[in-house]
Amino acid sequence: MSQKPILLKDVTIEDGFFSHYADLVRSEVIPYQWEALNDRVPGAEKSGCIHNFQIAAGEKEGDFIGFVFQDSDISKWLEAVAYSLTKKPDEKLEALADEVIDLIGRAQKEDGYLDTYFMIKEPENRFRNFRDCHELYCCGHMTEAAVAYYRATGKDKLMRIMQRFIDCISRNVGPEEGKLHAYPGHEELELALIKLADATGEQKYVDLAAYFINERGQDPHFFLEELKTRGDTFRFEGNDLQPEAYFQSHLPVREQKDAVGHAVRAVYLYTGMADVAARTQDEELKEACRTLFRSIRDKRMYITGGIGSTVDGEAFTFDYDLPNDTVYAESCASVGLIFFCRRMLEMDGDAQYAEVMERALYNNVIAGMAMDGKSFFYVNPLEVFPEADHKDPHKSHIKTVRQKWFACACCPPNIARLLASLPEYIYQTDETGLTVNLFIGSSAAYRNGTVVQRSGVPNDGKTTFTFHLPEEESFVLRVRKPGWSRNCTITVNGKTVEAPVEKGYFCLNRTFREGDCVCFAMDMPVRRIYANANVREDIGKVAIMRGPMVYCLEEHDNGASLPLLFLPRSAAFKEKAGEGLFENLTLLMADGLRLQPTGSEELYSETPCTQVVPQKLTFIPYFSWANRGENEMLVWVREAPLA
Amino acid sequence: MSQKPILLKDVTIEDGFFSHYADLVRSEVIPYQWEALNDRVPGAEKSGCIHNFQIAAGEKEGDFIGFVFQDSDISKWLEAVAYSLTKKPDEKLEALADEVIDLIGRAQKEDGYLDTYFMIKEPENRFRNFRDCHELYCCGHMTEAAVAYYRATGKDKLMRIMQRFIDCISRNVGPEEGKLHAYPGHEELELALIKLADATGEQKYVDLAAYFINERGQDPHFFLEELKTRGDTFRFEGNDLQPEAYFQSHLPVREQKDAVGHAVRAVYLYTGMADVAARTQDEELKEACRTLFRSIRDKRMYITGGIGSTVDGEAFTFDYDLPNDTVYAESCASVGLIFFCRRMLEMDGDAQYAEVMERALYNNVIAGMAMDGKSFFYVNPLEVFPEADHKDPHKSHIKTVRQKWFACACCPPNIARLLASLPEYIYQTDETGLTVNLFIGSSAAYRNGTVVQRSGVPNDGKTTFTFHLPEEESFVLRVRKPGWSRNCTITVNGKTVEAPVEKGYFCLNRTFREGDCVCFAMDMPVRRIYANANVREDIGKVAIMRGPMVYCLEEHDNGASLPLLFLPRSAAFKEKAGEGLFENLTLLMADGLRLQPTGSEELYSETPCTQVVPQKLTFIPYFSWANRGENEMLVWVREAPLA
Repeated sequence: MSQKPILLKDVTIEDGFFSHYADLVRSEVIPYQWEALNDRVPGAEKSGCIHNFQIAAGEKEGDFIGFVFQDSDISKWLEAVAYSLTKKPDEKLEALADEVIDLIGRAQKEDGYLDTYFMIKEPENRFRNFRDCHELYCCGHMTEAAVAYYRATGKDKLMRIMQRFIDCISRNVGPEEGKLHAYPGHEELELALIKLADATGEQKYVDLAAYFINERGQDPHFFLEELKTRGDTFRFEGNDLQPEAYFQSHLPVREQKDAVGHAVRAVYLYTGMADVAARTQDEELKEACRTLFRSIRDKRMYITGGIGSTVDGEAFTFDYDLPNDTVYAESCASVGLIFFCRRMLEMDGDAQYAEVMERALYNNVIAGMAMDGKSFFYVNPLEVFPEADHKDPHKSHIKTVRQKWFACACCPPNIARLLASLPEYIYQTDETGLTVNLFIGSSAAYRNGTVVQRSGVPNDGKTTFTFHLPEEESFVLRVRKPGWSRNCTITVNGKTVEAPVEKGYFCLNRTFREGDCVCFAMDMPVRRIYANANVREDIGKVAIMRGPMVYCLEEHDNGASLPLLFLPRSAAFKEKAGEGLFENLTLLMADGLRLQPTGSEELYSETPCTQVVPQKLTFIPYFSWANRGENEMLVWVREAPLA
Repeated sequence: MSQKPILLKDVTIEDGFFSHYADLVRSEVIPYQWEALNDRVPGAEKSGCIHNFQIAAGEKEGDFIGFVFQDSDISKWLEAVAYSLTKKPDEKLEALADEVIDLIGRAQKEDGYLDTYFMIKEPENRFRNFRDCHELYCCGHMTEAAVAYYRATGKDKLMRIMQRFIDCISRNVGPEEGKLHAYPGHEELELALIKLADATGEQKYVDLAAYFINERGQDPHFFLEELKTRGDTFRFEGNDLQPEAYFQSHLPVREQKDAVGHAVRAVYLYTGMADVAARTQDEELKEACRTLFRSIRDKRMYITGGIGSTVDGEAFTFDYDLPNDTVYAESCASVGLIFFCRRMLEMDGDAQYAEVMERALYNNVIAGMAMDGKSFFYVNPLEVFPEADHKDPHKSHIKTVRQKWFACACCPPNIARLLASLPEYIYQTDETGLTVNLFIGSSAAYRNGTVVQRSGVPNDGKTTFTFHLPEEESFVLRVRKPGWSRNCTITVNGKTVEAPVEKGYFCLNRTFREGDCVCFAMDMPVRRIYANANVREDIGKVAIMRGPMVYCLEEHDNGASLPLLFLPRSAAFKEKAGEGLFENLTLLMADGLRLQPTGSEELYSETPCTQVVPQKLTFIPYFSWANRGENEMLVWVREAPLA
């Protein structure tokens, strides 16, 4: 029995940690991104996004600017705006969005086609290169924006625009003879079609999504066939070692066992697969989703919830290959992983998916944005040595300070749209009750009443739920039993109760009345985390977590040469309330050791380093690294200094 | 006061270890390379070398095959043949070489020009792209071959051909107004010109070499000027992070403090610099050479004598950046390092250079060739995990088994020419006496007599020198005090003597008589070697050496997952005589530990691996790895398993 989220309009975050992010998106990111989309940010790379639509609409002269997928930037901005308007109406912002939508409408062709790259640059080549040219990807992002804007404002203009484009696509692509048996090179439209189906109630969008999913990787291979049709030999150079796997089209999706290829594409695909499986009750497809989820979680994911081990193709590599310093772990990929987790939660109602969602959210995703919301990381390394990142070509993708905006601007708006819609990742319901996946202070509409969550996470684990119900209601309250807590005392109106754990949730099956207060007093110990011994990079090392947060060492607090620091297994931690930049955050202090160089200038000698000096180590939450200028950073710390 | 080597013709190797290599070069490598140069090796990439000369000579139709520096392959083959003929006359081989030289002569243009790439492909573009097009590099290799062949056979045909080509170059390049102020993009001609000067006695060749060296990196920058002249913007993509440094032309050579850029180019340049400095008694240039040598030895060299930390540009990166698994450490670069060391030995007579020479020779260089002489490595990693090398694009340059021949065939013939001329790296002389740099069994002409060296190296350190002298001679016998030995008992005719150590040599100043036997009984303990604490990759790890040889672990002997193995600091070693493939080699056995996985399939857990099981570790000489099929290999082993 599947569950449904409590949607954005019905959940409001009031949280010591995340309210800040909603505010930042509203006050900083959305306005900043609007400037960027209009090429008005000094020193940032040109987006060209609005410019391209103006040209396509015949309202401006000029050349197309940007990548073949440039249109998607405006979509992600519109989607974030829609979420923001849902929570906080803003006439001026809505008027701006309406203007953009009008522009998009004016740019659309008579037959519904809408992709400014092809309209401006190669009108003769529409629908000729599905593998590399992102028409369906851009359509997907704009469709997501359209549905979000419709839900936010009731205005369906953009949704109708996109329905016309999708009709245009359907006239060209599909199972029927004479149509192209195509599917998106960069997956995204699949999941968007399900949103459109949910918003319109039209089955044909589910059918088209299912077609894309089921056609993928079938023989004859469409991407190879279209190469022949075009008569060119263009081969995407993303990752020579993974030709079709780069696109997750190496096999029919039901036969795929490992998460492969470009990580963002992969998780967008898996999200669409889970959507289609749930809508069609396709058990085989559901099982394929579970298998791929386990491949990620059990073998191919960083402790921060980052995915993608190599910059080449921004891709997964192989089981247990998780290098910390040449990592990719794109912010977008973790956003996509959260999308996937949410669909799996809806499908299976199992807290294991929320565990991964929470890990990605509190670590890799929010690390992608500076604490002031003004600069961004694409790549989220777990070990940084600035000299290497500047001088080793294999690490040149690792930035040591967040960047203002990127020419390929996927991550900033992707982070923004996730954070702006974060309320709907907290709760799910089915007819039996209410499920709580994330510990984020919020109030949510539930059963003609309201549930109010107050949570100390990420600083402490105490979380209460207060119910405001006009009449008493019997249901199951399912609260995730988080992996980061060992002990939990549950009280109802001050009285201790027991709650059995099912599928990873404390389940409290009772009649709830007005004012009932359920408290989960979860401890939040500092935890030493060890990687599986197959992860070669992390042998002999430990990572520190507390609550959902991974911690790290920065040079700023701990001096240079972080790899010379050791954290003996016996070292105790002291929690310390952060100040300044770290206000409202918990820092961790521990008695560590620093290995002393021998003093010899020799490169190789018979003298080992044997001297260690005590050093207080200061761990900060991983997401907050690189907010104090360029410096070394390290997540996995050595444990044993001496033989 | 500089020293001179005892030349090839006057030294003959009779050694338990190296005689084998001389035989291999003669019986396997030279004939095999001849087949390769003629494109007759099934399954190997085409060389096109002979083919190109035939076209250039107007004796064949067809297109140029290979790289812009393809001609150099035939030069290196001819040079190896010359060395082989010096030690073992072979009428058929000499006839073959004569034929090749005749072909080269027929290919030469009237005006002396000789470079088949430009003659066939772009006759209009001669001397238009010194930076990238290797005309001077190819000239250098052929000049080396010419001098070697002249010394071997007395035949000067090829030398006269090259003198004409160099005259042609000199008409176009030089300090005079109207000439190009050019220098080689890939250094090599500099050192070759000095060989030609030595063979002909003509100062003009020293002058031209000195011109190249002194012009390099001067302002205006020639390589940037020639770009303007050509009107193109072609930029070599070797290593974007090191534009001019890639070519060692970022600064005038006297101002260069760090070894930078393409490692082979660098050491060829430094060799030429040392040659010129010695011939011109240029103290400033000598000091620049010493500085660059220290940059390599103290900060940028692998324990195996490999240099070049990244495949991007096959280049040096920065101090202490010595990754073991993404390493380049090209065989050719270590060959070039040996050339440089030899010049420094001649210049300074200091054993520190011989230490590096020996390290590179016994490890990185001979690892470049299979023990049967039939296949070769370019890249010599210190840590190999085959799955990563196959699936991680950043490691795709790491081959796990040696390859037959490469389209860019620099390494195999470079190894061959070094091994074929190895006798002249053993001894040096000056008027005061005889210097022994390498412990290789051999007999050498000295002072109207002969000195015979018998050495147990690399299996044991006992080394004797027997003098056969028609009359008594007073001189200093300088025998290197190797870094790998702690104790040495020196006896003369069985009687213990003391010998002071100067510049790293035991110095025995006495009158030598017929039959005098000097024995150096040097111990050869197994040594644990530690890298400088600045080498992040090697913190907490140990490498094993015995004598000049670095040892390694292979999966074949020690099972998979080598990074789970530990060698406690207290573990003792047992020497074991090798068998089969390892006949005449010493293997090392030690009581190590293997960390046991927790048994959990979780990727991250709170349970550390704490169990270790004893495991006998078998270490083999590094050079002999990958002679038993594909498997894991590891040089730097963890020391401390537990916190």
